[in-house]
Amino acid sequence: MLTIAVDAMGGDHAPKPEVDGAIRAAKALGVRVILVGREDVVRRELESHADYDSLPIEIQHASEQITMHDSAAKAVRAKRDSSLRVASRLVRDNCAQGFVSAGNTGAVMATAKMVQGVVPGVDRPAVAGVFPTVTGSPMVMIDVGANVDCSPSMLAQFAIMGEIYSRMILHRESPRVGLLSIGEEEHKGNEMTRASMPLLKSLPINFIGNVEGRDIYSGKVDVVVCDGFIGNVALKVSEGLVDMIKNMLQESLEATITRKLGYVLSKAAFTDFKRRVDYSEYGGAPLLGVKGVCIICHGRSNANAIKNAIRVAAEFSSGKINQRIESEFRRWNGGKAGD
Amino acid sequence: MLTIAVDAMGGDHAPKPEVDGAIRAAKALGVRVILVGREDVVRRELESHADYDSLPIEIQHASEQITMHDSAAKAVRAKRDSSLRVASRLVRDNCAQGFVSAGNTGAVMATAKMVQGVVPGVDRPAVAGVFPTVTGSPMVMIDVGANVDCSPSMLAQFAIMGEIYSRMILHRESPRVGLLSIGEEEHKGNEMTRASMPLLKSLPINFIGNVEGRDIYSGKVDVVVCDGFIGNVALKVSEGLVDMIKNMLQESLEATITRKLGYVLSKAAFTDFKRRVDYSEYGGAPLLGVKGVCIICHGRSNANAIKNAIRVAAEFSSGKINQRIESEFRRWNGGKAGD
Repeated sequence: MLTIAVDAMGGDHAPKPEVDGAIRAAKALGVRVILVGREDVVRRELESHADYDSLPIEIQHASEQITMHDSAAKAVRAKRDSSLRVASRLVRDNCAQGFVSAGNTGAVMATAKMVQGVVPGVDRPAVAGVFPTVTGSPMVMIDVGANVDCSPSMLAQFAIMGEIYSRMILHRESPRVGLLSIGEEEHKGNEMTRASMPLLKSLPINFIGNVEGRDIYSGKVDVVVCDGFIGNVALKVSEGLVDMIKNMLQESLEATITRKLGYVLSKAAFTDFKRRVDYSEYGGAPLLGVKGVCIICHGRSNANAIKNAIRVAAEFSSGKINQRIESEFRRWNGGKAGD
Repeated sequence: MLTIAVDAMGGDHAPKPEVDGAIRAAKALGVRVILVGREDVVRRELESHADYDSLPIEIQHASEQITMHDSAAKAVRAKRDSSLRVASRLVRDNCAQGFVSAGNTGAVMATAKMVQGVVPGVDRPAVAGVFPTVTGSPMVMIDVGANVDCSPSMLAQFAIMGEIYSRMILHRESPRVGLLSIGEEEHKGNEMTRASMPLLKSLPINFIGNVEGRDIYSGKVDVVVCDGFIGNVALKVSEGLVDMIKNMLQESLEATITRKLGYVLSKAAFTDFKRRVDYSEYGGAPLLGVKGVCIICHGRSNANAIKNAIRVAAEFSSGKINQRIESEFRRWNGGKAGD
């Protein structure tokens, strides 16, 4: 049975969604879960669930907690008994195959990188976000927030890791990999995209050149490569727009009685829609390139999001994605003397 | 009576939306319109409208046309009798107070900059896009595509121009200006945003610091400053997402009979929604910092978008925005010896 550690103190509403999510995962997915955090707090939450003691769930005590106000550097240096750090250590020591955290993204990345280490060949781990598309097939965007200033060789590494994710976990055959820019033509873009183009073209992947912002949702590309600054902006612009649209639809629909009746009759469609654009269905974003598995969730994650993140962590572990990344990097560097 | 020139050959479906839009504007807005393009083609389109000869619409012949495949440099150097260039020349020669084009954005910018020249004090003109927000008040994003690699002083100029646009044209009092980044804290961002922070703080505007992608739609900021690469990605990500959501809603609503009935009853709400997120209501994006007025429309613009762009051009001209920009830049530079 796979074991996944969950940082029970990470999210904005911890430990409730973490504990609820762990219970759902233990029931539905057949995984063992270790909840990491202050034992008294976590146990109290766990005991509010009637059937908890029949499930494969354990608690691992950790006395400290990283907050949104702690810098990543401080998280790594100062709080040596934080729930985040203890969860990461469980992975390093092979007590768990992966861990899930809805905490401070910068702190999660820095901790995983330092405690677990990176896969040989990888310079900088990157966060891979999954986006829905018109065609229904999920699209991977890498990096969505780990590395704000990138070199062409970092983008090339992201491309390889994203391609493996799409192929091995999302089961896309020969995923189409594109570079996020502001026009399809090769000369369009900024200094960084233009400088990255030759290297990306030389990779042993199905690289389709520049793609534009609107292609993220169009289904014409499976992996979008960008630096973490752009990726984070794209992700958050999307979140903000979805929130606004939900609001607008609600307002418009509440404006008259006829529309209200219409709303009642078309409610299932709205539920569908919300589910399809809801990040919590996608189960968090993997930090690719670290040893072991690390899944980063939104701070606002609900129990469903945590459950799905545990599922993704288990899939990554079974899919042996790190071994794949390591062997692809070896193959790639092997073909390029001195690189 | 204000006169606005329209590049009748610019858009993807030219000259139909341009001519239709000109007719709507001449009827509704009390402006005179000069349609610029191949006389035979434009006249044929114009004559398909029964009442055209009673309206203040004229045709100015231009023998050439810029296509999406022409580079901006080529457009400026080679095609001296293009509809775009002739329209820009009408503004320079004071035969029109502004011009509207749905053509190749790079070519429009390069042409306007060269033919009309820039407002004294401005280094680089920038495109200001208007976005809807949850609160209903429009938000200005600058730059959305003109300048891909920017320095801190360029961002500072964008901030000042965007602030004037928000205040003078959109009538926001003391507009809140934010720098697009990946976290609100000052240290979050990339090299460029961190380097720009001190300069932005020193400006005589209501600068509120870093804002995130989701704030574009939240109504908590009136002007978002960013380089043209990020701005263009944010704009196109939003377009792509809106398209996907329209699609999803349609699909979900068509799935069962009850929902279809619901759809009929709530149809007005959808029309509302589409109108509120429809770029064509916003009437194109002004190129700020050039002398005269230049409004850039989406290549896919319909007649309504062209009409609204003509309206915006007229508003910019009456609002004397360029004089404002010039005096603000003089004031700003006056306060900073040697800048």
